[in-house]
Amino acid sequence: MIIVGIDPGSRYCGYGLIQTQANKVIAAGCDVIDVTRVSNLGERLVLIHSKITEVLEEYQPDCAAIESMFFQKHIRSVFTLGHARGVILLALAQKGIPIFEYSPREVKKAVVGNGNADKEQVRYMIDKIYKLEASNKKDDAYDALAIATAHFNRIKLDALQ
Amino acid sequence: MIIVGIDPGSRYCGYGLIQTQANKVIAAGCDVIDVTRVSNLGERLVLIHSKITEVLEEYQPDCAAIESMFFQKHIRSVFTLGHARGVILLALAQKGIPIFEYSPREVKKAVVGNGNADKEQVRYMIDKIYKLEASNKKDDAYDALAIATAHFNRIKLDALQ
Repeated sequence: MIIVGIDPGSRYCGYGLIQTQANKVIAAGCDVIDVTRVSNLGERLVLIHSKITEVLEEYQPDCAAIESMFFQKHIRSVFTLGHARGVILLALAQKGIPIFEYSPREVKKAVVGNGNADKEQVRYMIDKIYKLEASNKKDDAYDALAIATAHFNRIKLDALQ
Repeated sequence: MIIVGIDPGSRYCGYGLIQTQANKVIAAGCDVIDVTRVSNLGERLVLIHSKITEVLEEYQPDCAAIESMFFQKHIRSVFTLGHARGVILLALAQKGIPIFEYSPREVKKAVVGNGNADKEQVRYMIDKIYKLEASNKKDDAYDALAIATAHFNRIKLDALQ
């Protein structure tokens, strides 16, 4: 099974793919879509939508995990983030890929074992799990792998029940 | 020139088209996309995106006017609205249609002459301008025509300067 994890950000949109075989899991790829160079909102959304669609066509994931709505202090960034998240959910739904949502807390708990873990701890664990040897990928790519990992853990737990 | 006005709502997404000839303007069509029957968020976004794309292909508007980000009290509805607005802006940008934004206040001021006008006053004025004879279209369709009208007024004002 291939799971795509997506971390929609307003500057970088991270994505990470993991492939599961029985109880094992390997990272199949991860990166970020850099939208900082595009100032026009419409063009930025076209970039996110077309890049995510390309990733889905290349890796053919069976399901997607995405960060659930989280409530930031600044309403303007919630709105901007909502735009990006909207076109990502659209790309997934256009391909008929089932979507699962996880809160940042659930993701940290699944990866580090502590819902209050910081970014460095998540990065450290993702490096260990997937033997990435401290790659120079951006945090958002790591976060996307962490979100996919949270979904893999959920599937494993569900299988035990 | 054909202007499409769009009023992205979380339940109904209104759209309205006006056609301008010199200083005259007529309504070319308006309606709402009813998303209340689709409970799945991904499917709802697919519906909005595909319907808006259909409207753009049918009417071939030269430009689009949409309500600017407005800051509601409930952060959850801001987020939901952001998703819908994101896929609408995507559909417009995919067709290369220039997007102009107007605040609800600017729209009311342009149509009624008073930025604090209520929905009924906007509806009454849109009925008068476009001779709709109190059609049974939903408020959101009227709002979309009002947004397009605000943009038409801006163009007229700019031409005078």
